[in-house]
Amino acid sequence: MGIVVQKYGGTSVADPERIKAVAEHVAFTRSHGNDVVVVVSAMGKTTDNLISLANQVSSTHPGRELDMLLTTGERISMALVCMALADIGIDAVSFTGSQVGIITDTVHTKAKILEVKGDRLREALAAGKVAVVAGFQGVSTDSEITTLGRGGSDTTAVALAAAVNADVCEIYTDVTGVFSADPRIVPQARKLQHLDFEEMLEMAGAGSKVLALRSVEFARNHNVPLHVRSSFTWEHGTWVLDMSAFNAQQSSKENAMEDPIISGVVHETGEAKVTVFGVADKPGISAALFEPLADANVNVDMIVQNTSKDGITDISFTVPKSDLATALKIVNAVAGELGAAGVTHDEAVAKISLVGAGMKTSPGVAAKMFRVLADANVNIEMISTSTIRVSVVVGAANTEKALRTLHTAFGLDSGQAYSAPLPERK
Amino acid sequence: MGIVVQKYGGTSVADPERIKAVAEHVAFTRSHGNDVVVVVSAMGKTTDNLISLANQVSSTHPGRELDMLLTTGERISMALVCMALADIGIDAVSFTGSQVGIITDTVHTKAKILEVKGDRLREALAAGKVAVVAGFQGVSTDSEITTLGRGGSDTTAVALAAAVNADVCEIYTDVTGVFSADPRIVPQARKLQHLDFEEMLEMAGAGSKVLALRSVEFARNHNVPLHVRSSFTWEHGTWVLDMSAFNAQQSSKENAMEDPIISGVVHETGEAKVTVFGVADKPGISAALFEPLADANVNVDMIVQNTSKDGITDISFTVPKSDLATALKIVNAVAGELGAAGVTHDEAVAKISLVGAGMKTSPGVAAKMFRVLADANVNIEMISTSTIRVSVVVGAANTEKALRTLHTAFGLDSGQAYSAPLPERK
Repeated sequence: MGIVVQKYGGTSVADPERIKAVAEHVAFTRSHGNDVVVVVSAMGKTTDNLISLANQVSSTHPGRELDMLLTTGERISMALVCMALADIGIDAVSFTGSQVGIITDTVHTKAKILEVKGDRLREALAAGKVAVVAGFQGVSTDSEITTLGRGGSDTTAVALAAAVNADVCEIYTDVTGVFSADPRIVPQARKLQHLDFEEMLEMAGAGSKVLALRSVEFARNHNVPLHVRSSFTWEHGTWVLDMSAFNAQQSSKENAMEDPIISGVVHETGEAKVTVFGVADKPGISAALFEPLADANVNVDMIVQNTSKDGITDISFTVPKSDLATALKIVNAVAGELGAAGVTHDEAVAKISLVGAGMKTSPGVAAKMFRVLADANVNIEMISTSTIRVSVVVGAANTEKALRTLHTAFGLDSGQAYSAPLPERK
Repeated sequence: MGIVVQKYGGTSVADPERIKAVAEHVAFTRSHGNDVVVVVSAMGKTTDNLISLANQVSSTHPGRELDMLLTTGERISMALVCMALADIGIDAVSFTGSQVGIITDTVHTKAKILEVKGDRLREALAAGKVAVVAGFQGVSTDSEITTLGRGGSDTTAVALAAAVNADVCEIYTDVTGVFSADPRIVPQARKLQHLDFEEMLEMAGAGSKVLALRSVEFARNHNVPLHVRSSFTWEHGTWVLDMSAFNAQQSSKENAMEDPIISGVVHETGEAKVTVFGVADKPGISAALFEPLADANVNVDMIVQNTSKDGITDISFTVPKSDLATALKIVNAVAGELGAAGVTHDEAVAKISLVGAGMKTSPGVAAKMFRVLADANVNIEMISTSTIRVSVVVGAANTEKALRTLHTAFGLDSGQAYSAPLPERK
């Protein structure tokens, strides 16, 4: 007996057949004695279609109205899932974000959750019902309908799981779990059984699209175990949890030996590189460059500044390609004021990252990575590291070669990342 | 300066182009100094598509979930209309039925309005904004989302018009007004300029589809002038109001002379006739027959019982064709218990009604109607009358002939029903 929160993404409820399959799986989960909270996204392309309609009627999309428009998608899904459950004899009740008490700030289209009341959720579970909740939405402190922005439905699911102290938050999607690399590029990639919250955070930050960074952060902060799995195969997927606590419960010696240094290789091809040449290396230069970018909401990722030579240095950074035009306009202006020698940019780049909790205690990962890439004749343009991640920027044409070579060199092609058993369903 | 409530039906907001046209018309109305409240239906076939989805996922449609599903349609429309208004510089704000305080009873899928709070509506107007409200929906005394059933958006508009004491409630649809007969059948039919609430009620009850009976009743009870017009031509349509009060304001002598006896000929082909033969004419027979029909929610329309002969009589009544199977099952059972001689039914019938406030003071309308039909060789199967309406049931094959002959005979083919000017826009 436990409480299971199940989040179904857009492809998992894309059509009536998929919705019926979801209902069957909810029934299956209940038949094992669990209380179930279901969180749904909008069906398939619904959100895209609504945005297209908005673009057709207007070039002006007030946030309040856009949120009202887009939240209808999840409401349609939740009502249909409840009907499909009723059809197979499961008593279910739907709740909007507002009805379930997801209180947000007042920032339309990207609201942050301030509080989850969840009274009606607990009442429904206590009455033996399945609760079906619209993802992606809440109600602001001003009593207006808000949306949570990208990855919003995952965040709804994690927030509700924390509110009802669920045993697990299952994220159903169109892939079977988190892989050691993108299987479309690295055929030898394998599904990871376990990941630590920190590793998943780094992977999401490095370009993995499976889970939104924000929902992983929320899960880590509230210690909500995540289970990423497919609604097309229903097979067990990848657990994301606090591995140190989990290992402590297991026979620790056995597990310690099995811990791999690297969990996965992640790539990101959606960014472009900008370099400002020949800047004076003195206090305030970086601020002068990056403050106006932040003010313009340009999402700067990697920043690298070399040691200066004769008091002159170069600064490189990456931004999403969609922000490049804005970024160049600002940087060119600032570079002129700073007396920089020039500004260049390159869209044909890829960021390749190695992520693994084992790095903390295993020195030499970065050095090995650089050697492997050098042997494969892949030139490294930028480097950035964190305690459990090493990222490099390489030419986009080298993406596949870099991924496959590193995947093999770090022993990810075969074997298990963790031999520990999956957490027991209570 | 006044307050104008404008209700736009599904065809009026069917696509982005129509929505932009609605926004332009709202701007036009405001440019004449009016405050505007807009009530919208779901776009085109949205509601049908949602019902189709519901049927595909489930044969069980709990009312609460069905209401949640269907109310999304109007929410999409209202957000899009607000965006289109914003695009042309009109400050607009959308409200769901719940947000605007339309409080209903707890009967899902056909809730009745108990109260309209309208605080946010008045605030929006006071702030100089256009209020755009989702039709067809409210919130129950249990705080659940409800829908108002058939004609719900018209009822929303009339209820809001009453709440803000609007000067007029404009109902925009795909026809240019209320006609003296269905123009698809009677080419000489002409648009009526004015109708009394009572006449519109009888016409709606007799089969006219332009306005839902329920919204007309609400308008009469709260004395809300209605203006039925087209969002495709924007020309002036038909006013429905309290004619006696209106005429009292005008030069009464002049108008009295112009008052026609008959305003229109209405037909209804969606009903079937059921006859129970040879029933004993004694107290309780009618109750025995019609109570179980009412219990089964069969919507009985005309009921005719002839004077008995030798203590034996026949009872005929009409029901919607969709209720016929249910009705026959019940009637056959009851007829057996009552010892009736037999039960017959006929689906090939049409109800033809003459409606006109002038009938009250002009005897002989019914007699003239029967003579006209007899001369046209149209056999009359049933007759029923009210103070301002005469209805007959004839064979369906005679529908066109009966309508056209009556339309001509009662002088409806030419001239104006009322020569009075349209009410002045304040």
